[in-house]
Amino acid sequence: MQDKDYMELAIHLAQMTRGQTSPNPAVGAVVVNHGSVVGVGAHLKAGEAHAEVNALRMAGDRAEGGVMYVTLEPCSHFGRTPPCADLIIKKKLKRVVIASRDPNPLVSGKGIERMRQAGITVDTGVMKKEADALNPFFFHYIRTGAPFVTLKIASTLDGKTATSIGESKWITNDQSRHDVHALREQHDAILVGIGTVLADDPQLTVRLNDEAHQPIRVVLDTHLRIPEEARLVTDSAAPTWIVTGNTIDEKKAERLNHGHIDIFQLPEEKIDVRKLLALLGEKGITSLLVEGGATVHGSFVKSRSFDRLIAYLAPKLIGGTEAIPAVGGSGIEHLAEAAKLSIERVENIGGDLKITAIPEKECSSCLQDW
Amino acid sequence: MQDKDYMELAIHLAQMTRGQTSPNPAVGAVVVNHGSVVGVGAHLKAGEAHAEVNALRMAGDRAEGGVMYVTLEPCSHFGRTPPCADLIIKKKLKRVVIASRDPNPLVSGKGIERMRQAGITVDTGVMKKEADALNPFFFHYIRTGAPFVTLKIASTLDGKTATSIGESKWITNDQSRHDVHALREQHDAILVGIGTVLADDPQLTVRLNDEAHQPIRVVLDTHLRIPEEARLVTDSAAPTWIVTGNTIDEKKAERLNHGHIDIFQLPEEKIDVRKLLALLGEKGITSLLVEGGATVHGSFVKSRSFDRLIAYLAPKLIGGTEAIPAVGGSGIEHLAEAAKLSIERVENIGGDLKITAIPEKECSSCLQDW
Repeated sequence: MQDKDYMELAIHLAQMTRGQTSPNPAVGAVVVNHGSVVGVGAHLKAGEAHAEVNALRMAGDRAEGGVMYVTLEPCSHFGRTPPCADLIIKKKLKRVVIASRDPNPLVSGKGIERMRQAGITVDTGVMKKEADALNPFFFHYIRTGAPFVTLKIASTLDGKTATSIGESKWITNDQSRHDVHALREQHDAILVGIGTVLADDPQLTVRLNDEAHQPIRVVLDTHLRIPEEARLVTDSAAPTWIVTGNTIDEKKAERLNHGHIDIFQLPEEKIDVRKLLALLGEKGITSLLVEGGATVHGSFVKSRSFDRLIAYLAPKLIGGTEAIPAVGGSGIEHLAEAAKLSIERVENIGGDLKITAIPEKECSSCLQDW
Repeated sequence: MQDKDYMELAIHLAQMTRGQTSPNPAVGAVVVNHGSVVGVGAHLKAGEAHAEVNALRMAGDRAEGGVMYVTLEPCSHFGRTPPCADLIIKKKLKRVVIASRDPNPLVSGKGIERMRQAGITVDTGVMKKEADALNPFFFHYIRTGAPFVTLKIASTLDGKTATSIGESKWITNDQSRHDVHALREQHDAILVGIGTVLADDPQLTVRLNDEAHQPIRVVLDTHLRIPEEARLVTDSAAPTWIVTGNTIDEKKAERLNHGHIDIFQLPEEKIDVRKLLALLGEKGITSLLVEGGATVHGSFVKSRSFDRLIAYLAPKLIGGTEAIPAVGGSGIEHLAEAAKLSIERVENIGGDLKITAIPEKECSSCLQDW
């Protein structure tokens, strides 16, 4: 057994908790002593024990003189739990192997430093790439303060999401729509524009099973046009956040601002996408799935405010200059300004295409072939 | 060696001549006697010897008592060459193995019948699927009298072919554009609308090498608006056919109708796509590549007048309701009327996606996975 083998197990442990730890990262840890695994752990949920703590608890006295493999640098500060670095020192481990350093530049390396000062050998970078891929949302959020934004498109092969008279049910197939629910569950919040609410009255919940995590439902509604009988208002299955501009009917806002509904008024007349993202970041949203419609997608594309595109393309053609496009708004005039992406993955979802693409500036690990 | 092994060689021979035999099909033939290959042949070019004739010529006296493997049923009628069935009888072959029967219902089976009456054993259907795939254009043309129509789209992932101010150079990458030239060369004719001529003044030639086959360039130009200085008019590298409605400037038509240019006036005011295809079929066009623009694609999609879609999707987003869509025109109102396809193949062309899809009614051999 080599370092890589133990780290692979730690990564596998973390993988199994992806989506349940937000706003914390998924982390796995393995403690080995005299060639035997003596403790394994993962971080299960925000507010609960870190992966290192769980693994050391299992190891008990057998941690002493052992080696810990952990996917993320152990923390050195008091958060909701005491610093893991201190516990590792206290338990007298001989060596710690780390995949990724802490992405927060303010604390990155401090846990490593602390353990080294206590005489522990610390090695870093083992399976770093795989470990970084565990927590794209968390890493992005810690570095930028804004959520990781996924644009979701569901259109025909010719880029239409509805016919000229607005028929849109359904463009994609059952399997693709089921896949969207799984995608929703991976995000802290889902966002739609008021146009989509008025046209479709969507529920925007995850309908996979009774215990599915329900992301916060965010509506961009500059003039607070949301009907008080909309399902996002009447159905409290998940929180609904309504983001508006500065000119709204204050009485309506007061009536709505109760229970599962929160109204956030931005100080400008129009909603600026970057300010919106900063607000969501402040509120602890690490990941956002933008589901449209066309105008909202247009704003996010034009302001380059997205980190991933997931396009479900149904093998259909609608045609027509009056049909609703996947990405609308004012668009760009010059091709040089088009958003350039790299395709990361193409999947067959029951006959539909699912295309995952990353904006070029962000694309560090895009595949050249798929 | 089994029948399948010899037929595989016959198919391979035919494959190597694909694209050079139109309006005739690609055909390969192998003659075997006492377990030895004694003759091989392919049909090289319309007007020249059929595959059977070439293979029998090579075999000479050793054809007598032998077996012929041929990808398509030998003809029984006098065309540009005498009937192959008669030659096979004359050369005293003992057995003939055929992959596909003649697709023309008027003559299908007649060659087989004639050889059987002469005492030759005839077996059919060996590797039929592979042999049918050699000549999709020819089989379609013989059965319907109209060309096999391929719609070619080159758009962004959000279905745009140009920005709101018409910038379209270039959406797709170099490799995709090179691939389009190879695609053009496989077709008898290329079609564009007058809008594309006015906007882009295209050359519509195959720029692969000096000996590339140059398809006929067809322009849909209802009111004969083509400028007399357009490259399709001034450049005689390939024939240009201009198809118009019945209300045009007859003097302009007369001026243009010379040399490499032919004007075809349809009897109605507007051009009906099905009548256009019937006309092209009568003129011997077995395959047509429709390159757009949006309005032309819209007409072909709405009238379901296509047999294959090839979409090159560049990993870019343009957005905007005023940008030019890949498929325009009046479109459909009800989703139930959308053209439904099955995706046959997805390829990575230097980072662009190349998607090949077949309308559902036509799709007999679509892959379930790719």
